[in-house]
Amino acid sequence: MTTRPRAREVGLLLGDLPTGRFNAITDVAGVLVGQTTLIAGDGPLVPGQGPVRTGVTAIRPHGGRLWRNPVPAAVEVINGAGSYLGLEEIREYGLLASPVLLTSTLNVGRVADALVTWMIRQDPEYDASQHYYNPVVGECHDAYLNDVRGRHVREEHVLAALDGAASGPVAEGTVGAGTGTSCFGFKGGIGTASRVVALNGGAFTVGALVQTNFGRPGELVIAGVPVGKELRSPDSPGAEAGREPRPDGGSIMIVLATDAPATSRQLGRLARRVELALGRVGSLVHHGSGDVVIAFSTARLTERSTEAVEARLALVESGPAMGRFFQAVVEATEEAIVNSLFRATTVRGRDGNVSQALPIETTVAILRRAGRLA
Amino acid sequence: MTTRPRAREVGLLLGDLPTGRFNAITDVAGVLVGQTTLIAGDGPLVPGQGPVRTGVTAIRPHGGRLWRNPVPAAVEVINGAGSYLGLEEIREYGLLASPVLLTSTLNVGRVADALVTWMIRQDPEYDASQHYYNPVVGECHDAYLNDVRGRHVREEHVLAALDGAASGPVAEGTVGAGTGTSCFGFKGGIGTASRVVALNGGAFTVGALVQTNFGRPGELVIAGVPVGKELRSPDSPGAEAGREPRPDGGSIMIVLATDAPATSRQLGRLARRVELALGRVGSLVHHGSGDVVIAFSTARLTERSTEAVEARLALVESGPAMGRFFQAVVEATEEAIVNSLFRATTVRGRDGNVSQALPIETTVAILRRAGRLA
Amino acid sequence: MTTRPRAREVGLLLGDLPTGRFNAITDVAGVLVGQTTLIAGDGPLVPGQGPVRTGVTAIRPHGGRLWRNPVPAAVEVINGAGSYLGLEEIREYGLLASPVLLTSTLNVGRVADALVTWMIRQDPEYDASQHYYNPVVGECHDAYLNDVRGRHVREEHVLAALDGAASGPVAEGTVGAGTGTSCFGFKGGIGTASRVVALNGGAFTVGALVQTNFGRPGELVIAGVPVGKELRSPDSPGAEAGREPRPDGGSIMIVLATDAPATSRQLGRLARRVELALGRVGSLVHHGSGDVVIAFSTARLTERSTEAVEARLALVESGPAMGRFFQAVVEATEEAIVNSLFRATTVRGRDGNVSQALPIETTVAILRRAGRLA
Amino acid sequence: MTTRPRAREVGLLLGDLPTGRFNAITDVAGVLVGQTTLIAGDGPLVPGQGPVRTGVTAIRPHGGRLWRNPVPAAVEVINGAGSYLGLEEIREYGLLASPVLLTSTLNVGRVADALVTWMIRQDPEYDASQHYYNPVVGECHDAYLNDVRGRHVREEHVLAALDGAASGPVAEGTVGAGTGTSCFGFKGGIGTASRVVALNGGAFTVGALVQTNFGRPGELVIAGVPVGKELRSPDSPGAEAGREPRPDGGSIMIVLATDAPATSRQLGRLARRVELALGRVGSLVHHGSGDVVIAFSTARLTERSTEAVEARLALVESGPAMGRFFQAVVEATEEAIVNSLFRATTVRGRDGNVSQALPIETTVAILRRAGRLA
Repeated sequence: MTTRPRAREVGLLLGDLPTGRFNAITDVAGVLVGQTTLIAGDGPLVPGQGPVRTGVTAIRPHGGRLWRNPVPAAVEVINGAGSYLGLEEIREYGLLASPVLLTSTLNVGRVADALVTWMIRQDPEYDASQHYYNPVVGECHDAYLNDVRGRHVREEHVLAALDGAASGPVAEGTVGAGTGTSCFGFKGGIGTASRVVALNGGAFTVGALVQTNFGRPGELVIAGVPVGKELRSPDSPGAEAGREPRPDGGSIMIVLATDAPATSRQLGRLARRVELALGRVGSLVHHGSGDVVIAFSTARLTERSTEAVEARLALVESGPAMGRFFQAVVEATEEAIVNSLFRATTVRGRDGNVSQALPIETTVAILRRAGRLA
Repeated sequence: MTTRPRAREVGLLLGDLPTGRFNAITDVAGVLVGQTTLIAGDGPLVPGQGPVRTGVTAIRPHGGRLWRNPVPAAVEVINGAGSYLGLEEIREYGLLASPVLLTSTLNVGRVADALVTWMIRQDPEYDASQHYYNPVVGECHDAYLNDVRGRHVREEHVLAALDGAASGPVAEGTVGAGTGTSCFGFKGGIGTASRVVALNGGAFTVGALVQTNFGRPGELVIAGVPVGKELRSPDSPGAEAGREPRPDGGSIMIVLATDAPATSRQLGRLARRVELALGRVGSLVHHGSGDVVIAFSTARLTERSTEAVEARLALVESGPAMGRFFQAVVEATEEAIVNSLFRATTVRGRDGNVSQALPIETTVAILRRAGRLA
Repeated sequence: MTTRPRAREVGLLLGDLPTGRFNAITDVAGVLVGQTTLIAGDGPLVPGQGPVRTGVTAIRPHGGRLWRNPVPAAVEVINGAGSYLGLEEIREYGLLASPVLLTSTLNVGRVADALVTWMIRQDPEYDASQHYYNPVVGECHDAYLNDVRGRHVREEHVLAALDGAASGPVAEGTVGAGTGTSCFGFKGGIGTASRVVALNGGAFTVGALVQTNFGRPGELVIAGVPVGKELRSPDSPGAEAGREPRPDGGSIMIVLATDAPATSRQLGRLARRVELALGRVGSLVHHGSGDVVIAFSTARLTERSTEAVEARLALVESGPAMGRFFQAVVEATEEAIVNSLFRATTVRGRDGNVSQALPIETTVAILRRAGRLA
Repeated sequence: MTTRPRAREVGLLLGDLPTGRFNAITDVAGVLVGQTTLIAGDGPLVPGQGPVRTGVTAIRPHGGRLWRNPVPAAVEVINGAGSYLGLEEIREYGLLASPVLLTSTLNVGRVADALVTWMIRQDPEYDASQHYYNPVVGECHDAYLNDVRGRHVREEHVLAALDGAASGPVAEGTVGAGTGTSCFGFKGGIGTASRVVALNGGAFTVGALVQTNFGRPGELVIAGVPVGKELRSPDSPGAEAGREPRPDGGSIMIVLATDAPATSRQLGRLARRVELALGRVGSLVHHGSGDVVIAFSTARLTERSTEAVEARLALVESGPAMGRFFQAVVEATEEAIVNSLFRATTVRGRDGNVSQALPIETTVAILRRAGRLA
């Protein structure tokens, strides 16, 4: 697996706001990400055996027990195909009380069950008559490369992702829940990015993490340039790439984090802006897409200073402030998507199906020709 | 387990519309119900071992493969606490493409996984790149009686409920997903009822099936009579009953079926009326409630006669017709709830916790005194 | 117009919580109500001339300029028939920035325009490039009694209702926006009630004001007693009453106020409980109903003590606290509806159409016989 | 007023699908558009007198009485600031029963009232006890150029727009409800476009009409090119353009029409895709935006052939078919927005405020340099 650059490393600057330290969702202090990647076997599909190209990605808003210290949160369903667990309670209470797990579609039940196991273990004094757990799980369908019927994500894989979740840089591309996914006909996967918003003399961070499995060949747009079309022209070195059939257009899961003291209602407004980023990269949010956003804030009113509360009120009442947060969401999501494509490597999966990596050199040449590189 | 009457058998007629043959959701032709009841062990709670008071209830809109022949459907979330799988796709497509499974809260993951197993087995020619499954699972939290952490509903229990699903009479009370639930401080469980609506010379059926685990002691109202309060008065023989603590007020799952050729939008309007039935029985839809309705129609446009299509158009445009369907929903749901209480037997569960059956004789006496029995 | 009692004055106590001083929405400190009643002409309908049986009711959350000091608010649409102005912005911002005006359906445009006039007059320093107004108007269709095409509510009537809005007792029945409305086949109109919730050593008030124009003859239930049916029995003195035809079932507008420091999300949960009260009074929320709730809180975080903020957090996290607020909403709404019927007087309107007042003596006798009076 | 080109006339082809005959919403057979433009006075703002730069635009799905023959419809609120009338009933019934009127924010009441007048006049046999009207009105705030407090759109202007509505080419730019609006710091206004989708051997049309009043200077993107930024660079001939302050980011109203026999649910999915087009043109859907989509279908099941019904079922179940309709929505909306900018002329309004037209020559040069012109 050769090292592939992130978007920013080739001079591709999407948007105007500065990034956080790692340009990752973990730039929001306290947020932890852990991933388990499952790659095993080759050749013809033997349901239940493999080949295996899948995994799980865990996003933990903080290192504690979320069900005892939930965070304000919101859900936005852009297109609701697919299997999601835990969304109704986020809507009702405006709170996220579980880590967010991303995985392969048919694995949602097993992953949810493993998450319950993990919660129970962390909670020996649990009073079953008073509390319960509400695991939050989302997915993309990695059936082109993976033996999806085998449901290969087992309890130990989920526990490893949760226990191994860490701050700092986040692995992107062919990793975790993105191991077997594709995007615009190329290999997709996990991507992340962040933006910093200056407000009232302070600074707040917005981070995005995506699992990309959407878009038809030819639709990809990067920095306004129809890269997908150009790569498919007969005289392009990438003409053979990006041909994976995808009748229904696939899916994308988006997790947004911020340390701004936003209410669930405000987080819902942030989540709504993700669709603008999808518009920017050329998505049509196809019929069969599961395009779902989960947004949370790590700032709780009870734990914040007066200044933070005032900043919150500024958020409520100030159009310019909200506008900068909207911008941060759109830019971070757009860059996270592009990072998932830049970082993902070519994967050969079940039945010899190949999802080719986005040809970086050609893509960079196209973007340079269009004057889009710094 | 003594035989306890259904509401109608003691002369309690809720509403004005006639019932179907079995006064059950299965009066909607084609609908199948299957249940697995798990009762094992006694004494102190030993997490993972028991005592076990739980189960699973399966509602199949028809006997075929739903994912290939989905039915029009809608979801209404009255209060969104709890864990639900599969709701987003119903909303997006207006279609139900899976049996509906009801179970215990922490079992949702395992039950969903077992449902996927069942779907795969029915579908040997599945093309994984083209299709996927969207299991639909709802729940109530039976923690007062059951070892919820043990997650005792296993794959074989789910397969048995699905494969054993049948038309005809439906077992009520302490059965299936209602084995460990409570309602207004008494033992709740599964209940069902149906109503027949005459329309344009034909007749359509509306059926309801509920899993009742909601309501505080004292809140129960039957046929407008504050039965819960009267049972708690010091001079009532039932004064000691209905005392189960329930700080958050519990939950109710409601499944509505009809053979009327309704669209998903119309089904959503029907589902919305369930809350009126909750108002009639005294519910406040408490903070911690998961009160979720899934409504479906077994009539597909492609399979119906011209007359049925015309009836559908009448539904769209006719207030009186919709009003009768609304009435059918409210009456069937109210009676299904009361049936779950009438039929449920006293259960002693984990740690010796007891959920007492509604005292039938006293209740009947109260209703008779109020002039509410036929 | 004889004096008719409110429900409580005949010993009808709906629910368990105590009322506020006036048992009115104005028990929420700061809330003002103003009404203009228009009654003119008799005999055959001459569109544009009369007879006139209509009016306008204004609810002002506080005496200031709402658009500069908006209050947290939420909207719940139980059934969306009818014409409503201003709901989207309440949803988006979670704020109410206008008085709420209730009127007759076809008058919405004129009433909205008059409300803009009133806002502009209060706001001479308005900077048109920075601000705008978002009038909030709801309605019921008083066509059975009123010349609706005449749209007789003019600017001066709206200004009078707004300027005359006051705290203290609220006129009920055949008044303001309720002048021409009917309910369950009897004369409906304006009704109000309140409840006090003790919480954390303090007390919060919940008030409801309704404009009732819903329900078919025979459906009315009071305190669980099928009063509507009993009044229609051949041997009832009220047998001839309650016969107004209403194919689509009419509408109800509900305004909820509280001084509890609730967020817009919490207010939305309160508003959702109104449907339970509709269930209690026998409503089926018919096809043609416009059943719309607007809920607001007069407590702003910035203006409240630390104790209030703590109470707010208790609200967020405490099921029992929320349960009491839900109870307050259901009880106040139910009593407001019954008050609208108790207080409304018989009205003869266009074409000699008569909407008869609920026969109080017979109704009281029915309720006494059922043991529902204190 | 010099003649300015539409986007397509300078070789700017947005997207891949073919346009209808007029590249306008009127390419959907039966749809009529009528507009009244109000321009009067100059100089300082004198509230109530002028200057006047406003108007009204009417979209009629067919030439008949919509309230007797409504069309399937849906609403999508992307950001809900502003004043909208009639949306709830579209949501409840899935039907549009009124022409759609667009105007200036504070005029909504007067325009709605005039629309009621028009409906009444067309309906002499109206039975007021059985029917009512539900006028549908949307708006943008043209306060930068117009005396908004004066509410200069009077009844005769509305009646003229409704009665004058016609098929064929649609006037764009500084016209009707777009007379006083601005977009990305330039003069915006009315724009329209259409796309044709081939399906099952037939062809369906999707048309969009927009009233553009959104976007901050510098945000504008055309065909992926950051035209807004390039025009603001110091060495650009357009450097002084696009400077209108707009703290809250303005609004856009979008009306979508199609002759495809889509249900209200499907129309809702089409409407949801409009946000992707906003992403493409650089919008952030700012805090103060009223970005509202109303979508309708002119094809009623009862009036269509069996083939059309089959096409409808294909729509329901076919991802590829829906994908093409989504593409048509995104392309038509994007082009309609660009057309509103291309066609709008510079307007000097109240207090000498100037909203400059997009500099066409410079814009074309930028697009040509980027290789985006055919």
